[in-house]
Amino acid sequence: MSERIAHAELQSKVMTADEAAQFINNGDNVGMSGFTGAGYPKALPTAIANKAKEAHERGEEFAINVFTGASTAPDCDGVMAEANAINYRTPYNSDPGLRGQFNDGTARYQDIHLSHLGLQVEQGFFGDFQVAIIEAVRITEEGHIVPSSAVGNNVEYINAADKVIVEVNEWQSLDLEGMHDVYKVPNLPNRTPIPIQNPGDRIGTTYIPVDSSKIVAVVKTNAPDRNAPFKPLDETSKQIAGHFLDLLEGEVRAGRLAYDQYIMQSGVGNVPNAVMNGLLDSKFENIQAYTEVIQDGMIDLIDAGKMTVASATSFALSPEYADKMNDEAARYRESIVLRPQQISNHPEVIRRVGLIATNGMIEADIYGNINSTNVTGSKVMNGIGGSGDFTRNAFISSFISPSQAKDGAISAIVPFASHIDHTEHDAMVIITEYGYADLRGTAPRDRVKKMISIAHPDYRPLLEEYYERATKAGNALHTPHDLATAFQFHTNFLEKGDMRG
Amino acid sequence: MSERIAHAELQSKVMTADEAAQFINNGDNVGMSGFTGAGYPKALPTAIANKAKEAHERGEEFAINVFTGASTAPDCDGVMAEANAINYRTPYNSDPGLRGQFNDGTARYQDIHLSHLGLQVEQGFFGDFQVAIIEAVRITEEGHIVPSSAVGNNVEYINAADKVIVEVNEWQSLDLEGMHDVYKVPNLPNRTPIPIQNPGDRIGTTYIPVDSSKIVAVVKTNAPDRNAPFKPLDETSKQIAGHFLDLLEGEVRAGRLAYDQYIMQSGVGNVPNAVMNGLLDSKFENIQAYTEVIQDGMIDLIDAGKMTVASATSFALSPEYADKMNDEAARYRESIVLRPQQISNHPEVIRRVGLIATNGMIEADIYGNINSTNVTGSKVMNGIGGSGDFTRNAFISSFISPSQAKDGAISAIVPFASHIDHTEHDAMVIITEYGYADLRGTAPRDRVKKMISIAHPDYRPLLEEYYERATKAGNALHTPHDLATAFQFHTNFLEKGDMRG
Repeated sequence: MSERIAHAELQSKVMTADEAAQFINNGDNVGMSGFTGAGYPKALPTAIANKAKEAHERGEEFAINVFTGASTAPDCDGVMAEANAINYRTPYNSDPGLRGQFNDGTARYQDIHLSHLGLQVEQGFFGDFQVAIIEAVRITEEGHIVPSSAVGNNVEYINAADKVIVEVNEWQSLDLEGMHDVYKVPNLPNRTPIPIQNPGDRIGTTYIPVDSSKIVAVVKTNAPDRNAPFKPLDETSKQIAGHFLDLLEGEVRAGRLAYDQYIMQSGVGNVPNAVMNGLLDSKFENIQAYTEVIQDGMIDLIDAGKMTVASATSFALSPEYADKMNDEAARYRESIVLRPQQISNHPEVIRRVGLIATNGMIEADIYGNINSTNVTGSKVMNGIGGSGDFTRNAFISSFISPSQAKDGAISAIVPFASHIDHTEHDAMVIITEYGYADLRGTAPRDRVKKMISIAHPDYRPLLEEYYERATKAGNALHTPHDLATAFQFHTNFLEKGDMRG
Repeated sequence: MSERIAHAELQSKVMTADEAAQFINNGDNVGMSGFTGAGYPKALPTAIANKAKEAHERGEEFAINVFTGASTAPDCDGVMAEANAINYRTPYNSDPGLRGQFNDGTARYQDIHLSHLGLQVEQGFFGDFQVAIIEAVRITEEGHIVPSSAVGNNVEYINAADKVIVEVNEWQSLDLEGMHDVYKVPNLPNRTPIPIQNPGDRIGTTYIPVDSSKIVAVVKTNAPDRNAPFKPLDETSKQIAGHFLDLLEGEVRAGRLAYDQYIMQSGVGNVPNAVMNGLLDSKFENIQAYTEVIQDGMIDLIDAGKMTVASATSFALSPEYADKMNDEAARYRESIVLRPQQISNHPEVIRRVGLIATNGMIEADIYGNINSTNVTGSKVMNGIGGSGDFTRNAFISSFISPSQAKDGAISAIVPFASHIDHTEHDAMVIITEYGYADLRGTAPRDRVKKMISIAHPDYRPLLEEYYERATKAGNALHTPHDLATAFQFHTNFLEKGDMRG
């Protein structure tokens, strides 16, 4: 273990998670590592949950404010939610139990752009941070932290916190060291340009510099990340992927893209994996990724020699691929860079490199406004994640979704999006299994026919009816709407379980 | 005139506007100078309008696609609209006649972030540009263009266009030369960091480099910009300004801002002018502006020694202040920098300098989503302008508006914004004459009480009723909504002329 905890003094700080939980108190702001189920603390959350349960049994209040990189796992968000240990949570969550608490009103959730939270912590918008809990591959001789499978907001939380607890996880490969590129933009008023011009540029250190006197506890763990297998590719995903590749080919024909110039940003999921599968057999070469998460399909592209470099802040791998990454990290770190999410998702770098952004959505309206977060306007799913960071600053911004869900009861194309996370000013291309709607260079009225053409056929007449009603409603015609019936799809669904009514 | 047209060969290209209009054909993409009524071409628009009228009289089609920096003037957008000479218009408009055509469906308008349009032109999203029409202070010995009172998208349009028409306007002071800082980010895939760290940094040339062989016509003009007087400060504007200054003082008390660190971005209007008036008597010193428009209040701050530097892309001055600028440009160019709008509004620089953004709005909803553009969801007013560029990347993003309009028939705080230009993820502080709602660090439900507290008292019970109905609607409680009545304020206004019903 001395290889894992190479700083002599910190070896004396080794303790159990229950012992380390003494440093966490009711009402604390706690910054944690963890992004898409990678690199989150494995032991402290359960210890915190137990501490909360004991306090609650004694009739005492105990709940903390949890700040992470993005989503974590059942043994992190899940156990804390089950113990009612979370008061306020940001910036992203995918845990079903915790989500249930947001939606029944028992926990509070602020859905923040992933590139913004670290900044806002540095700017002091949340006040003091009492504790940071950070998973590491190892602690160096100097007491610095080599992060594990995600960098997230670790730098910001370590800098902000009074006390740092490090979980050294032996499950994480020591060969991850060298994959990270930790760069910190100086705080205001001294911010400087970020010197990245290409996705693979390395500009920082392979560890997070830490004042080791802030480390109050070191906890040893040996537990895997939350790595879930991807579903086999279904027909709809393949069709959507096909239309996305058509979009890329169209850009090449128009002279706006070369076969060796595609820089990928991609959300996580089955459709993105289908896109990557399709790219394996495409004419695109020298693909680069400047994105937030490395998933299986990118590993396949790297192995096939189609992808030369991938920059992200974390992994989201199937168990099989996670094992491969741990076994072969020394090889993969030649073509993978893990950065702080403030850098992986930074508008400055995103706009500079000129990537093509591809993100999932819940629904789009006929004018190209996108709902990524709230079902029927109220029920939060996961969160906006990095989709806003990438969409707003991309060379081309695209959104992908099957045209319908729940056996046709839900349409992904609606008259008015019931929550808007990306506006008509930002979304450029919307893709379903029926094709792609290219909204670039169009006024709102020009978009309607295109959007209806990618809706599920069951919904096309209903959308046409709405647009006709909207143009006759007597309101202005720049963005025709009939506000009295704009949410009828959604109220139908809430009342009758089907948007068709 | 040789001082104004110093390039010998181009003196031979001097012609009338009617003669120069020969180069403009039906269906052309035409890029024009002009931003907030400054620096737009004064002669060609009327010549184009006449050409359109003549064509229409002959039964021929004639309409062009007009791309500018932002808004122009009655003798630019106005005359062309009146002649039905505009098919598609972007990225911003404030001309009432043209707005009417967008809203009655006879002209098409795409409302684009001001930092995005130049990029999209460079990226080829609009195809070829046939003509650029650019107002200049003078043409240099080398044939380069010294822009006038706005830089806008001039660089991008000149580069994109096959032919360039220059209007040399003698009304514009020759002393403006030296005020501009023309910098061009290389096109993809070679974009580089923008080396601005402080609002006043100069990184480019004082002229726009042009291949003079592209200049097909030079037209002499002598006409003022559209400079409108500001209204005297009213009580409501002063109250809003007071609350904004309270916000700044609160930031100082919280240790997040020093009295000599305020970097201003401000929309144009009476409330911003009231804010600047209030700053004259405040403790703030060394104020800097990184914004898109220089208005009267900033000139007063410069003259008072309170503002050390202002960076923008154009002026929006009253006639009195425009005369002063023309008379004393040699002095003001020491503290004013006019940049291309891609730079004045660039997310990279905005995030780096850490400015406080302050923009107007049409309405905000109880969760902090902002409508900047479409009245009752359909009727476009002016456009999003740079508000998205600044809001998304600011240190603090604020929105200001009187709580009501039309003698109380319209509330600026509504249950659900009828068009969303800035999402709940971006808006931080909302200010009316009743105070400011600080939404930082809050979940959606936490925002409702704050937002209702700044609504007009007439509307507070109605908003409370809505929220109560929303929490009981049976939908989830993350962002409580009752979608069936979410737009009742707006339908009341459309049906009865009053949001109160």
